[in-house]
Amino acid sequence: MIPRYSRPEMVAIWSPETKFRIWYEIEAHACDAQAKLGVIPAESATAVWKAKDVEFDVARIDEIERVTKHDVIAFLTHLAEIIGQDEARFVHQGMTSSDVLDTTLNVQMTRAADILIADMEALLAALKKRAEEHKLTVRIGRSHGIHAEPTTMGLTFARFYAEMDRNLSRLRAARMEIATGAVSGAVGTFANIDPSVEAHVCAQMGLVAEPISTQVIPRDRHAMFFATLGVIASSIENIAIEIRHMQRTEVLEAEEFFSKGQKGSSAMPHKRNPVLTENLTGLARLVRMAVVPAMENVALWHERDISHSSVERGIGPDATITLDFALARLTGVVENLVIYPDNMIANMNKFRGLIHSQRVLLALTQKGVSREDSYALVQRNAMRVWEEGADFLTELKADPDVAKAMTEAEIEENFDLGYHTKHVDTIFARVFGD
Amino acid sequence: MIPRYSRPEMVAIWSPETKFRIWYEIEAHACDAQAKLGVIPAESATAVWKAKDVEFDVARIDEIERVTKHDVIAFLTHLAEIIGQDEARFVHQGMTSSDVLDTTLNVQMTRAADILIADMEALLAALKKRAEEHKLTVRIGRSHGIHAEPTTMGLTFARFYAEMDRNLSRLRAARMEIATGAVSGAVGTFANIDPSVEAHVCAQMGLVAEPISTQVIPRDRHAMFFATLGVIASSIENIAIEIRHMQRTEVLEAEEFFSKGQKGSSAMPHKRNPVLTENLTGLARLVRMAVVPAMENVALWHERDISHSSVERGIGPDATITLDFALARLTGVVENLVIYPDNMIANMNKFRGLIHSQRVLLALTQKGVSREDSYALVQRNAMRVWEEGADFLTELKADPDVAKAMTEAEIEENFDLGYHTKHVDTIFARVFGD
Amino acid sequence: MIPRYSRPEMVAIWSPETKFRIWYEIEAHACDAQAKLGVIPAESATAVWKAKDVEFDVARIDEIERVTKHDVIAFLTHLAEIIGQDEARFVHQGMTSSDVLDTTLNVQMTRAADILIADMEALLAALKKRAEEHKLTVRIGRSHGIHAEPTTMGLTFARFYAEMDRNLSRLRAARMEIATGAVSGAVGTFANIDPSVEAHVCAQMGLVAEPISTQVIPRDRHAMFFATLGVIASSIENIAIEIRHMQRTEVLEAEEFFSKGQKGSSAMPHKRNPVLTENLTGLARLVRMAVVPAMENVALWHERDISHSSVERGIGPDATITLDFALARLTGVVENLVIYPDNMIANMNKFRGLIHSQRVLLALTQKGVSREDSYALVQRNAMRVWEEGADFLTELKADPDVAKAMTEAEIEENFDLGYHTKHVDTIFARVFGD
Amino acid sequence: MIPRYSRPEMVAIWSPETKFRIWYEIEAHACDAQAKLGVIPAESATAVWKAKDVEFDVARIDEIERVTKHDVIAFLTHLAEIIGQDEARFVHQGMTSSDVLDTTLNVQMTRAADILIADMEALLAALKKRAEEHKLTVRIGRSHGIHAEPTTMGLTFARFYAEMDRNLSRLRAARMEIATGAVSGAVGTFANIDPSVEAHVCAQMGLVAEPISTQVIPRDRHAMFFATLGVIASSIENIAIEIRHMQRTEVLEAEEFFSKGQKGSSAMPHKRNPVLTENLTGLARLVRMAVVPAMENVALWHERDISHSSVERGIGPDATITLDFALARLTGVVENLVIYPDNMIANMNKFRGLIHSQRVLLALTQKGVSREDSYALVQRNAMRVWEEGADFLTELKADPDVAKAMTEAEIEENFDLGYHTKHVDTIFARVFGD
Repeated sequence: MIPRYSRPEMVAIWSPETKFRIWYEIEAHACDAQAKLGVIPAESATAVWKAKDVEFDVARIDEIERVTKHDVIAFLTHLAEIIGQDEARFVHQGMTSSDVLDTTLNVQMTRAADILIADMEALLAALKKRAEEHKLTVRIGRSHGIHAEPTTMGLTFARFYAEMDRNLSRLRAARMEIATGAVSGAVGTFANIDPSVEAHVCAQMGLVAEPISTQVIPRDRHAMFFATLGVIASSIENIAIEIRHMQRTEVLEAEEFFSKGQKGSSAMPHKRNPVLTENLTGLARLVRMAVVPAMENVALWHERDISHSSVERGIGPDATITLDFALARLTGVVENLVIYPDNMIANMNKFRGLIHSQRVLLALTQKGVSREDSYALVQRNAMRVWEEGADFLTELKADPDVAKAMTEAEIEENFDLGYHTKHVDTIFARVFGD
Repeated sequence: MIPRYSRPEMVAIWSPETKFRIWYEIEAHACDAQAKLGVIPAESATAVWKAKDVEFDVARIDEIERVTKHDVIAFLTHLAEIIGQDEARFVHQGMTSSDVLDTTLNVQMTRAADILIADMEALLAALKKRAEEHKLTVRIGRSHGIHAEPTTMGLTFARFYAEMDRNLSRLRAARMEIATGAVSGAVGTFANIDPSVEAHVCAQMGLVAEPISTQVIPRDRHAMFFATLGVIASSIENIAIEIRHMQRTEVLEAEEFFSKGQKGSSAMPHKRNPVLTENLTGLARLVRMAVVPAMENVALWHERDISHSSVERGIGPDATITLDFALARLTGVVENLVIYPDNMIANMNKFRGLIHSQRVLLALTQKGVSREDSYALVQRNAMRVWEEGADFLTELKADPDVAKAMTEAEIEENFDLGYHTKHVDTIFARVFGD
Repeated sequence: MIPRYSRPEMVAIWSPETKFRIWYEIEAHACDAQAKLGVIPAESATAVWKAKDVEFDVARIDEIERVTKHDVIAFLTHLAEIIGQDEARFVHQGMTSSDVLDTTLNVQMTRAADILIADMEALLAALKKRAEEHKLTVRIGRSHGIHAEPTTMGLTFARFYAEMDRNLSRLRAARMEIATGAVSGAVGTFANIDPSVEAHVCAQMGLVAEPISTQVIPRDRHAMFFATLGVIASSIENIAIEIRHMQRTEVLEAEEFFSKGQKGSSAMPHKRNPVLTENLTGLARLVRMAVVPAMENVALWHERDISHSSVERGIGPDATITLDFALARLTGVVENLVIYPDNMIANMNKFRGLIHSQRVLLALTQKGVSREDSYALVQRNAMRVWEEGADFLTELKADPDVAKAMTEAEIEENFDLGYHTKHVDTIFARVFGD
Repeated sequence: MIPRYSRPEMVAIWSPETKFRIWYEIEAHACDAQAKLGVIPAESATAVWKAKDVEFDVARIDEIERVTKHDVIAFLTHLAEIIGQDEARFVHQGMTSSDVLDTTLNVQMTRAADILIADMEALLAALKKRAEEHKLTVRIGRSHGIHAEPTTMGLTFARFYAEMDRNLSRLRAARMEIATGAVSGAVGTFANIDPSVEAHVCAQMGLVAEPISTQVIPRDRHAMFFATLGVIASSIENIAIEIRHMQRTEVLEAEEFFSKGQKGSSAMPHKRNPVLTENLTGLARLVRMAVVPAMENVALWHERDISHSSVERGIGPDATITLDFALARLTGVVENLVIYPDNMIANMNKFRGLIHSQRVLLALTQKGVSREDSYALVQRNAMRVWEEGADFLTELKADPDVAKAMTEAEIEENFDLGYHTKHVDTIFARVFGD
């Protein structure tokens, strides 16, 4: 976790306090189920709930762990200090540490997913708002970084919306992937604990019981989760790169918002750096780097080895905290992005109408001029624009051979931007619904 | 593509012949739609279908491309050679190369996904069969590579089944991710072509129209597809590692099938190497390596740059061909895996009953012996087993302090393997349904 | 291997013909050494060289392999067909297949490295030439994509030179990493073959004897090799991205060379796409993807498992062939890159002198104006430039408060580009030597 | 950074205190150089050293940064509070923030490399000690996890030594890669600062001046550094996997040390888990995951963008802290590894002499028995061993056809383990020198 790229709510999920709270709840719910089965006394199960509103003393637990060298035992010892030695003796009965630890991890990941889903919804709202606002703000579309045909800024936002909307669906699927729990014992056979305990604990913790576990929940689930975060991070990079391009000095079609108070020199008013989106580009790499180790974690030896654990202590918090921060930052960037429609028009006109050459070519052929002749006509006028700085429309109008094929109005028609925006509504309806 | 790790059906999807066939179909369907709109003459559209059963001449197209330096133009030129210059003049009208190329890639990937889905179903069938066969074949469960508690070979197969069944769902979702097409023009605005053409082409090609494209279909889709293949590959590795462990000399609980004819020395009958599963371990890495570049492909510049293309020329065929081969190989390994139940029992008994020490401990406490005393009793008998090679059950029976707490029958009860298998039916029902 | 991204010389290294040739040489040299030791008859060793100029029949070897299911045995059988059954009986004596296979891989990789080194030298020559040519071609330096201070195009080439020169050193080190051979037997103990055989074979094949091998050469060497290729690929991407930025429509400071004949429309003369550098961006990803699996290959089980082999069948050829192609392509791009110095000046002047604001600020303070006052002076003139399109130098000269502190000449001095280029010689000397 | 996988010395390198200390030193040395050039007053330079022994107040700097939104300015403001406003006014003159920040990062990485080098030396010492100790401790070598031929435990340690010794060389090279500094200004032209300042600062900080920088030091250096850490991590995994295999219940040739006090049940004495090496397997993945983002960081836009920065805030500390911890942990594991030579012998004899079948085969042919007959002889005896549990040597001796070819002594000779260890000295001399 890098403090400056983290937000408190997500950080809290990964705190020791939260972890112990979840451990406690799992143990307490398991006691309830065990009591119902008659495995442990009902009053013991009830007693555990005495700690319901207690804040566990992390330092104390750590202190005990230094002696016992076992985190779950340390916690149980501390719990006994709170609810009484005697009342605590049936806690954890029939359970394996992993039952608690692995289920807890998935509770944490599920909660993390919930925050990410909310983040994504906020981002979608921002993208939609900006898309609608700039639905018909015309700018040049570029392939290979080179001017191609006109499009609109709204379509740019709309495609980011559509991409992030897919990511939201993926995220929801990823959440379901890891929303399972297991209370199935040392090798997953339920030898020492009835499956109904697992069922009860999972239901109470908002999880589904893992159909078949070993000592642990299978790691293909976690791999899929982190892979999904990696895709989302890549989409963040996609938007970030677009904005960085838009802000570069020669383009200047948009800028990240600069508050009046913000450093950034008014003596160098051009020097407003897209540092947020550059940062997002880096954060995307940080999130994405969790994908490969998560996949390497899948192949555990037999019923489990613990190689995955250190990896997850790293990537569990890091990837979710970083992604949460990145989504929120990106939402802010999108909401406040300063758009320069005039610069968009100015950029589009850089080659004085040449971007319409393709349409003119097509129009000539449709007027019955042969393909070869049409090309030659367009070419000779295009060359004057390119080499002498002439205006394409003016040249075309002045070309007698062109005039033979098309009226001035017909020529001008090819320069009408409405031609390019006529299906924007259709596309918006596809993306946002009607 | 590595020839020895490839199968013809999947390879064929990525052949030039298939590619040109798909190009042709897209162009022909587009003509139909354009004709219906009145953009091109109906007879021109009809004429294109003259090439319906023609095998395109790949060498000829390559020859033309060496002149035109443009693959789609080369193809269209060749098509004109077949259907006639005149009839061909309206083919590709209003379309951009990417409309054809990008839609084709997704057709190929969708077909590849279909093969992978069939592969997965075959693997699932094999796993299920072996799971049922060895449902109650007891073996020791291991955590950290160390004996823990008994489980069954059927549970091992069942958990691989459950994991691969999740992978099948993921694969189906991944197939949907990339089953889209786009015929939307140079920057995705439909400026030169009506959206209904896209709708028709996609429907005919078994795709959904991409709601919003630029010059290309957004690459988050492909990233998700390859990420999913990466997870599947990791699960293959998971099974492969289990089998490799089972086959190692000291364990020998299973072996890859050795045909009589197969080299592998009868002078060294112990030297049967798990080369297929070792190979699968490597193949998993090969598939997985597509994930990161696929994610790096997402952030294209503006309406497209072509950086993704070379990557996809590599990973498109390679990852799907390798995964197809790996799934089929794994299916064969599972189907034919030679299981040694006797060795499983022998391994389990390596420490002469010590794996039951935990149960004995629990039984003693349940008989009212204090936890400390129970532990001491178990420990002193366990030590004789460990250090002197004694048998745990025998020692327990001979221990007068144990005898005070439990009858012989009660002691023996703790060595009953049925204790560990009592919930196998429950788990099987969860995994395979009732 | 993707045919269109490959060159014949590198491809040839990975052909079956080359592979069998190397196998043959290893076997023949081993026979020489064995004969010298008296392990095999001298005439047998001599006889092997009868095949010195024979081209092995790959199809025949494959045919035999289909029967024997063992590639090395198939080759030896074919060799016996050539040199005679009797003469061949001592070939491979005391050797393990891996002795031949693993040493062969390293011969291939070493030769591949030699080609890559030559590629790199050609690239360096091109970069140096262009650096000298544009040593003082002034362009704006950009941080965050935003204009910062002037630099020169020569410095840009020089830094790419320095980076690639480091890569050349790394490549040479990487070549040494994998230029080892092993003829040490089934587990590396030399039980069945004398170490002197290894010494002789390695010396003849241009390798160093691996100090300690198991059945195979340790894979940390290969991991380091591919990691180095990954760094080089990243540097290729670095140059490619710079050129792609330079070529984008709004910047147009350089263009990839377009031959007259090349498609690329003269009707759309602005539409010259940087497809080579975009392609290089993708190729870089393809090379880089070999890094992780190469690292995953390091941890083999005990004295070897064969999981690494399938990975290397993929990445061995693919990464070297792709990198060879990419380096050559990049060299061509650099050699022929069309540079537009006028556009560089025009871009630099986009904000009419504002890039010098920092220097003016400094100059004012050095003239004794307080930091606050200096800032205010610069700011008010900068704002007129920014908001009203004025020229910075003109405004400064017209500002009476500025005039109080500096003469016109002193003001102008701050706009002298020589200020920024005064250390170019120093830097060039550092990079290229004197 | 994961606290439980970190050691204080390495953590301290990445603390704010250390960072500000390095910033201070860079600024102070720069002042010295500037004073020498006459750019700033000598007394100002001297005054800066007043803070030589001051501990900077991190909280105070943070507080200022919350206002200024700029870390370097915040630090300089705090420095001015210490040495006096007036004395501080020439600090940072002519410098760019990156001059300080980027040089600082490399100082930190260089120091981190120094710790890692020391870690590696300790590991090498441990490996060497154990290699010598078990030089002739015979164990079975395994290919594919299957018994092959005998080797020795000393050879296993020796190969790990050789691998880690290569890693030490790589680490030293990697340290040199990033031991450079830059004080070259906003775009690397030294426009505002003389190259001699850079030279002085670098020399004082133990760095080499970067021959050509932009605003930042080129990131191929860092990529190479992290790639090297990735290779080292993979070698750690290699050793860890070997030990995990050795400790698994069925093998039990070695165990991680268990202190008497350590939890780990004496009621279940077999349940000693190789948790340290499993943990190392996971830590290796964590270190390795830094490689790809470090490579993605290479391609910065023009003279720099800041995308690399967030990545390095993560991987800089994380990869070095984790690797430091892992190397130290591995050293402890190696030093204290409990070796079971008796179990090694027992495992080797699992198939009652069959591992010598190859030698017997060879011996028979050398005695003039035809290859076919030799094979048949070995095979029929091997089969009795394999299927009936007989002893291979006994069977051979009792076989009259074998007896015809070899005396008992000659037969026994093939079972002599000295045959396999005869070149151990040679190999040790290669690895450790004479």
